[in-house]
Amino acid sequence: MNKENLLKVSLKVSMIVIGDEILNGRTSDLNASWLSKFLFNKGLHFNEIRFIRDGESEILEALEAEFKHSDIVITSGGIGPTQDDLTKKVLAKYYGKKLIERADIAKIVTENYERFGRAWKPEQNFYHHFPEDFIGIKNPKGLAPGLGFYDEKKQTLLLSGPGVPREFSEMTETEFFPLIEKIFSGKIKTNYQTVVRTHSVPEEKIFGELAPHLWGELEAFGKVSSLPHTIGIDIVVTYQGDINAHLAKQEKIKAIFEKSAIKEFVWQYGNKSLSELILDLARSKKITFGFAESCTGGLTASKFTDLAGSSDVFKGGIIAYSNEIKKQFLGVSDETLKNFGAVSEECAKEMAFGAKNNLKVDIAISTTGIAGPTGGTFEKPLGTVCFGVSFKEQLISEKNIMPGDRVRKKDRFSDKALLILLRAIESYSN
Amino acid sequence: MNKENLLKVSLKVSMIVIGDEILNGRTSDLNASWLSKFLFNKGLHFNEIRFIRDGESEILEALEAEFKHSDIVITSGGIGPTQDDLTKKVLAKYYGKKLIERADIAKIVTENYERFGRAWKPEQNFYHHFPEDFIGIKNPKGLAPGLGFYDEKKQTLLLSGPGVPREFSEMTETEFFPLIEKIFSGKIKTNYQTVVRTHSVPEEKIFGELAPHLWGELEAFGKVSSLPHTIGIDIVVTYQGDINAHLAKQEKIKAIFEKSAIKEFVWQYGNKSLSELILDLARSKKITFGFAESCTGGLTASKFTDLAGSSDVFKGGIIAYSNEIKKQFLGVSDETLKNFGAVSEECAKEMAFGAKNNLKVDIAISTTGIAGPTGGTFEKPLGTVCFGVSFKEQLISEKNIMPGDRVRKKDRFSDKALLILLRAIESYSN
Repeated sequence: MNKENLLKVSLKVSMIVIGDEILNGRTSDLNASWLSKFLFNKGLHFNEIRFIRDGESEILEALEAEFKHSDIVITSGGIGPTQDDLTKKVLAKYYGKKLIERADIAKIVTENYERFGRAWKPEQNFYHHFPEDFIGIKNPKGLAPGLGFYDEKKQTLLLSGPGVPREFSEMTETEFFPLIEKIFSGKIKTNYQTVVRTHSVPEEKIFGELAPHLWGELEAFGKVSSLPHTIGIDIVVTYQGDINAHLAKQEKIKAIFEKSAIKEFVWQYGNKSLSELILDLARSKKITFGFAESCTGGLTASKFTDLAGSSDVFKGGIIAYSNEIKKQFLGVSDETLKNFGAVSEECAKEMAFGAKNNLKVDIAISTTGIAGPTGGTFEKPLGTVCFGVSFKEQLISEKNIMPGDRVRKKDRFSDKALLILLRAIESYSN
Repeated sequence: MNKENLLKVSLKVSMIVIGDEILNGRTSDLNASWLSKFLFNKGLHFNEIRFIRDGESEILEALEAEFKHSDIVITSGGIGPTQDDLTKKVLAKYYGKKLIERADIAKIVTENYERFGRAWKPEQNFYHHFPEDFIGIKNPKGLAPGLGFYDEKKQTLLLSGPGVPREFSEMTETEFFPLIEKIFSGKIKTNYQTVVRTHSVPEEKIFGELAPHLWGELEAFGKVSSLPHTIGIDIVVTYQGDINAHLAKQEKIKAIFEKSAIKEFVWQYGNKSLSELILDLARSKKITFGFAESCTGGLTASKFTDLAGSSDVFKGGIIAYSNEIKKQFLGVSDETLKNFGAVSEECAKEMAFGAKNNLKVDIAISTTGIAGPTGGTFEKPLGTVCFGVSFKEQLISEKNIMPGDRVRKKDRFSDKALLILLRAIESYSN
């Protein structure tokens, strides 16, 4: 299946993100990235995303262009009560509709307010001034109603939601998508992906040296892409079809990897994050774990507390940013710190050992390194990081040098710590 | 100054992010959000960002459209060695140029490889096949060269960089921007913003009840926007000019807030994050601090380890996800856990007190709450969070209920903990 086939079978969606704040660097977008995952899972084809400034001509131009190649255009932003919230006015103009006072919209607004235990009065804002013939849409997590308009002649649908991420995502799930399903019933197909996640080898080495024919072999199944993440490359094959065809493809793709030299660098046939995979495996083997973090400063632990219910296997951690805390809570010796320094495999081992015993967990992982931008030396350049692993009688360490700015280094360091934890859990025998 | 004036004086830039992976929800974009900050600080006007699929017609169409309203178009993605890397071919086609083997590009590629201690040979890939008349651009953090083309007749510049964030940002800073300055010298103005950061009051209450004339008053200075963040609303006024005009405007805007009822909810006249502000203030007052985190699980600490050199005042923390660790490392009593539960002001106070004494810091802050999606009760609904503050003889607690999904709740919880820390540092007398 080539890309053109993929495009033909899908209902196409575009998104317009309205607001100067993103183009000025004041905020980062969350709605477009959330929507891309949501649409993919629902089987819709995401054509294009545009971030535009909140001006009338910009909005009109973007609507015009996006409706040329998409069945559905979703906008976010600019439907609130302040004076830079232009969206409603411009949408009315685009469709040649008047803004009128509407009792049905006043009712939606009243309900939106009541959900927060508040009363709404028409003089508070202009939420009930709404384009004639538009569909009023509930805002389950906010106050401003969303807007919808189905153009029967062109068979296109406009949906307009708020910029606040929790409001946008909730409105999309509970209001927009059911409306899409109702209007375009039968046109929604299912997207599938087979994902193979690798570590420690660059893209070029995979497709250049280790498996020069891999890309071509995979293209027999669908559209291939190769995506770098913190500790390696994800190889992704995307196609449409039914679940049985998907499962069959998944098996065949796995078989291709299993006979290739990349095999040993695959850490997962599947789409879970490292922390999700670890949580599942630790639960099934009833293994508890914890961390002693210096350079990653809580980030490794935080990746687990992002996941609901992780407390049955993840117990906690020590953020030992200062040497005092390394000594006091983890039992790192003055001698080790003096002879090898805090960024050393020796220190990493003592940290992991101390964490395992003091946190009373089955496996403890430690991190100590130099995230920069200063603090590097000839022997320990920026990006140097040491990991310690302690479980049962095992006490292992590993040293790496990793690229990126400070924040990206921290992310790489902590994902590498998770990969080491995954390996430890795999090798742990109860 | 109204928006139209702002647009007229600036050099306009568009960005095209090329790659199915973002539209499929496989990766989140970092380049566009980074570039928006970079361009703003450099005084360029960011017109529009588009995320498109990596197809020839999509790329051609986007180039055509973006050059209609921008002087500079920057693309990211699709310049690597794999077969979905189409950008180079399509750019050549757009300008009617042939791809030819170029010795000058081979030299750049060789240098890119040498920087990583590797040797490049022409048979490895097609990096040296390059559009005629294009400018070859060094990749200081990667292998694939970037592309540039200045259209002298139209006075427009195309710049094409890699999708990998650390490569894209480095290439933009060290290669693209100097080229822009050279070609468009004299056309670059400076953007300024005055930012006022508030907490604990919603947008509607600020502009509806507390300061109904504020928006209008601020518009006299430039373009006004209102941006929600984790714990409140940022009010931002954007304008161009020289530094003295900016400083004068800043003072006048501050004076407007100081005589308004919002005053008490302002936590900063300025653009720093909570963690940066805390770090500065703690350093100037020589105050050390640390955390005892349950529900935020390391995220609060991690916000400090994101900042270089934070170790002089931030000492570390205890991630006490389990009750065992709360008791053992923080001295929380069995009685408190039994009578009030882990999510209680009593427990938060004991956690903070234990952290202050055991981490040997001047101020300790604790967090304990219910991030969900399950675990809420009638008395302690989802989003309930208790904070403890311990310094000198003070032992204070606070209880809140916060909205959002699990990850957003964690972020709000931890930013609220930082606001509480900021207040504690402000009130701390040495």
